[in-house]
Amino acid sequence: MEVINYLLGYKDIKIFQDTECFNFSLDSVLLANFVTLNKSTKQILDIGTGNAVIPIIMSTKTKAKIDAIEIQEKSYILGKKSIELNNLEDQISIINVDVNDYYNNCDTEKYDVIVCNPPFFKINEQSNINDSEFKQIARHEIKLNLDQLFNISKKLLKNNGTISIVHRPERLVEILEAMKKYNIEPKKIQFVYPKKDKEANILLIEGRKNGNSGVKILNPLITHCEDGSYTEEIQNYFS
Amino acid sequence: MEVINYLLGYKDIKIFQDTECFNFSLDSVLLANFVTLNKSTKQILDIGTGNAVIPIIMSTKTKAKIDAIEIQEKSYILGKKSIELNNLEDQISIINVDVNDYYNNCDTEKYDVIVCNPPFFKINEQSNINDSEFKQIARHEIKLNLDQLFNISKKLLKNNGTISIVHRPERLVEILEAMKKYNIEPKKIQFVYPKKDKEANILLIEGRKNGNSGVKILNPLITHCEDGSYTEEIQNYFS
Repeated sequence: MEVINYLLGYKDIKIFQDTECFNFSLDSVLLANFVTLNKSTKQILDIGTGNAVIPIIMSTKTKAKIDAIEIQEKSYILGKKSIELNNLEDQISIINVDVNDYYNNCDTEKYDVIVCNPPFFKINEQSNINDSEFKQIARHEIKLNLDQLFNISKKLLKNNGTISIVHRPERLVEILEAMKKYNIEPKKIQFVYPKKDKEANILLIEGRKNGNSGVKILNPLITHCEDGSYTEEIQNYFS
Repeated sequence: MEVINYLLGYKDIKIFQDTECFNFSLDSVLLANFVTLNKSTKQILDIGTGNAVIPIIMSTKTKAKIDAIEIQEKSYILGKKSIELNNLEDQISIINVDVNDYYNNCDTEKYDVIVCNPPFFKINEQSNINDSEFKQIARHEIKLNLDQLFNISKKLLKNNGTISIVHRPERLVEILEAMKKYNIEPKKIQFVYPKKDKEANILLIEGRKNGNSGVKILNPLITHCEDGSYTEEIQNYFS
């Protein structure tokens, strides 16, 4: 079933979602708010854009052109509708393509910023055994793994361009190793904790192509209060 | 000037400090509370023990034998006095030695746990230009750097033994690389933030020799309230 959700906090934004698909999540909203954007940001790539929630939120913060690519046709169609619904066709181009094919045909050093909410699970790792093929591709590293992602970023980023991703904290070490392998220096990390006395469950990380060493660990983000409601910090993203 | 401080929170513990030396700090107290100790922990090494605050706190949590080594004679004397003052000579052996000499003469795979509050600054990095040679050695990687520390740990730790250190968050990437180089797998990390809306200023990390991959990011520790007083969590360590 297709539904239109209002993205509260961004009062004019509406997003198409299909309840059978992989809906946009807190992860994407956090990533769209974490990524460093400034006046020199001219070209952005969102890899695996889903229903385009990340580029749509970024459009409220930057005038840069955004290319959004999505391998799955069903998500691509939702993304396209969401972009049209928000009259953002001039700023956001959505393309239905496998990132590996896009990589082979794209100009090198095209982008200032790459963002990605990638599949979190290794191929052999179980997320939900009943997942459809659609969800498998969104959740598991079938079409895109960390090594591929940073290899792609190395080619497509300008010198000193940045790649920002959201991931699971338990894979921090692998992520840092893969970044270093492709000369992407980790510069900014933020951990997101479900409650103030719990382990982190979301990792936000930004690396800079050929950057200097030295990383900042930003203030902790805590998503829920003791009573289970969203904290004020998170409510600010939505209301 | 030598003074005796009571370590509040550990009601019977007293610590000798010399106001001209490098006093024990929040870092050491946090590390002593972070390190994983259990019933199978039999042998512990504290590298660069200073006035022995870390082993003395650990003695409240474990019956394991603790070797504490300190290169600087002035700190060693304070540490020895603190151990005697607390009647811990049977559990804690303090030795006035350079860790690099200790390493050369020590049996391999002797320890279940190594802890270290190492020098935080690179040799060329300025901390305080007026530092005495004494403080230079405690603060700068003159006698011990990260590569040496994990090389030493690889030799002296039993298989599956752990090394826990406290450091500066901005050196996270280097620390992880040095651990991996010596087959020490990062397993547990905790970030300490001075206030809830500030960047982390202290990193606690534990790695396991030949451990499996996958790291936990523990709950955030926030040290100060808005008014500058210690948070309840930190007060619990001291009062």
